[in-house]
Amino acid sequence: MAESTPVLDFDGWSCPVPLRDSPTIVMGHGGGGQLSAELVQHLFVPAFGSQGDAGTADSAVFELGGARLAFSTDTFVVRPLFFPGGSIGDLAVNGTANDIAMSGAMPSHLSCGFILEEGTELSVLGRIAEDMGAAARRAGVAIVTGDTKVVDAGHGDQVYVNTAGVGLIPDGVDIRPQRAAVGDVIIVSGAIGVHGIAIMSVREGLEFGTEIRTDTACLYPLVAAMLAVTADIHVLRDPTRGGVATSLNEIASAARVGVRLTEKALPVPPEVRNACALLGLDPLYVANEGKLLAFVPREQAEAVLAAMRAHPLGEQATVIGECVDEHRAMVVATTTFGGTRVVDVPIGEQLPRIC
Amino acid sequence: MAESTPVLDFDGWSCPVPLRDSPTIVMGHGGGGQLSAELVQHLFVPAFGSQGDAGTADSAVFELGGARLAFSTDTFVVRPLFFPGGSIGDLAVNGTANDIAMSGAMPSHLSCGFILEEGTELSVLGRIAEDMGAAARRAGVAIVTGDTKVVDAGHGDQVYVNTAGVGLIPDGVDIRPQRAAVGDVIIVSGAIGVHGIAIMSVREGLEFGTEIRTDTACLYPLVAAMLAVTADIHVLRDPTRGGVATSLNEIASAARVGVRLTEKALPVPPEVRNACALLGLDPLYVANEGKLLAFVPREQAEAVLAAMRAHPLGEQATVIGECVDEHRAMVVATTTFGGTRVVDVPIGEQLPRIC
Repeated sequence: MAESTPVLDFDGWSCPVPLRDSPTIVMGHGGGGQLSAELVQHLFVPAFGSQGDAGTADSAVFELGGARLAFSTDTFVVRPLFFPGGSIGDLAVNGTANDIAMSGAMPSHLSCGFILEEGTELSVLGRIAEDMGAAARRAGVAIVTGDTKVVDAGHGDQVYVNTAGVGLIPDGVDIRPQRAAVGDVIIVSGAIGVHGIAIMSVREGLEFGTEIRTDTACLYPLVAAMLAVTADIHVLRDPTRGGVATSLNEIASAARVGVRLTEKALPVPPEVRNACALLGLDPLYVANEGKLLAFVPREQAEAVLAAMRAHPLGEQATVIGECVDEHRAMVVATTTFGGTRVVDVPIGEQLPRIC
Repeated sequence: MAESTPVLDFDGWSCPVPLRDSPTIVMGHGGGGQLSAELVQHLFVPAFGSQGDAGTADSAVFELGGARLAFSTDTFVVRPLFFPGGSIGDLAVNGTANDIAMSGAMPSHLSCGFILEEGTELSVLGRIAEDMGAAARRAGVAIVTGDTKVVDAGHGDQVYVNTAGVGLIPDGVDIRPQRAAVGDVIIVSGAIGVHGIAIMSVREGLEFGTEIRTDTACLYPLVAAMLAVTADIHVLRDPTRGGVATSLNEIASAARVGVRLTEKALPVPPEVRNACALLGLDPLYVANEGKLLAFVPREQAEAVLAAMRAHPLGEQATVIGECVDEHRAMVVATTTFGGTRVVDVPIGEQLPRIC
């Protein structure tokens, strides 16, 4: 029995544990939960020589030529490509624009990289590209550079899209997970769980009475309205893969604060609640594509909330919790019955290929 | 017979011609030749509302917060993942770093987006990530942000990697295809065709006597040495997919100059020449991953060439042609027998999934 730090050795390449002894990639490695985090922490960070904070923020922040930039990337493999209210094209533009906006930056320039499967209809690619162009115009960003690769039939799934993007961070703005502080008020900008359920409804052919449409949107205008109230917003996060629960856990861990959620304050639309009950899902873990979480100092919270509610993207903004001095690095929900429960990070994912 | 501009209509999505009447994506759309260019010009540019120049430079150039930036992206789908002298990880770092360097910028920050196929061995991903980290350290760039998606078995090919990156362009540097001018001397930094043949040799299990290793390298240090001689370099281009022939054609078109090549001046190593003869390939069209083409004003050419030869990445730099006032937007080679031939852009690609 060795006493040193355990190391997995795979065919000459070795990595520190955990990676859960699985010698192969499983779907959960792409789910944004614990398996994804372990891949980053135990495989990518050591290999890239990155800092320990890598992966905790939605975008990287650095200075270049005197400009403070936010830089981010996301790859989109959602199935199906088109769904109620949007397509992979909308997600690809809004998703990366939002990651940049979550640093308080105005997203301005995007790149796109396509992996096309041989045999895909040109009309499918055409519709996706048009959706990307329309989403970019709505978001006020320019798609300025790109690349296209084609892979043999059977080695793709019609269209995969990567986008990366940059944006300028205004002076005086310093928004990142590590800044969450005891006393911060936690606000969500609107109804949660909508995107994930929109995808599941069309994928599984489920009917929930009313059609549930994705909430995909570029959130920067809402961020700008919030920053007009105060530059001192501590944390912003768009809770995509893994949902609100995963985002809150990542922030609680990064800042070593406790997060206390009030379950009955969560804005879950009835159709999402019903669909989740049917599918055995928890809305706290379902992906959103047009919502943000904000951690705001208590003295600013009322004014920020008012500004959010005055904006079309934040009409239903509401306070869902606070940062506390107890159970640091953990998220605990006060249930509707007055009890408490730990809101943990899922191992893998409830819904594969949701974005 | 309609007299208006012909438009293809695919299932409600319409695009201007040509796109060659093919209703589906073919491998050649990813080959960097005419089919790729048509996809950009007739599908992406209209959809994105980009300018007509889109796609002619290796990177986009813009100002942000007072800093002049180069921004580029590339997706890598090379098969096999590991080959003599390198891997998809090396290409992913060096390829995007080089696209940025071809604007005269120092590549500084990279993003990476992975599409992993379920069932891929973690050790494969680990080796690729370590190659990326090592290449980034050699290139002096930091991988600062990333994303991982997993797709079901049978919808990928182990590992696809997208990288995007930014770099700062020094004051006084303005390097772009449109600046090629009559009288410019055209220099290549070393032996051509090496990367493509390295891939083909391992893919097809061919033996050419000596092992041919990829030339993958980050070219920025060579660019910096050239810029130390003069800021007035007109064009830089790394001739990857489609090879030297395609790059020269793109530059001739963008600047509306004629390009005259001297065939016997082309530095083709004997083993590449032999392999090309065996495979029925023209080395002018074979991909390179560690070479650059430079268009330099005649009066600076000698000093720039000397600086290149003094650098390890340019020891075999040589003049291969010039820009002329004839046959504008075309590339014409003077053959070893004293005749001339038009060097055209290939329709698709000779070698699929070469990068």
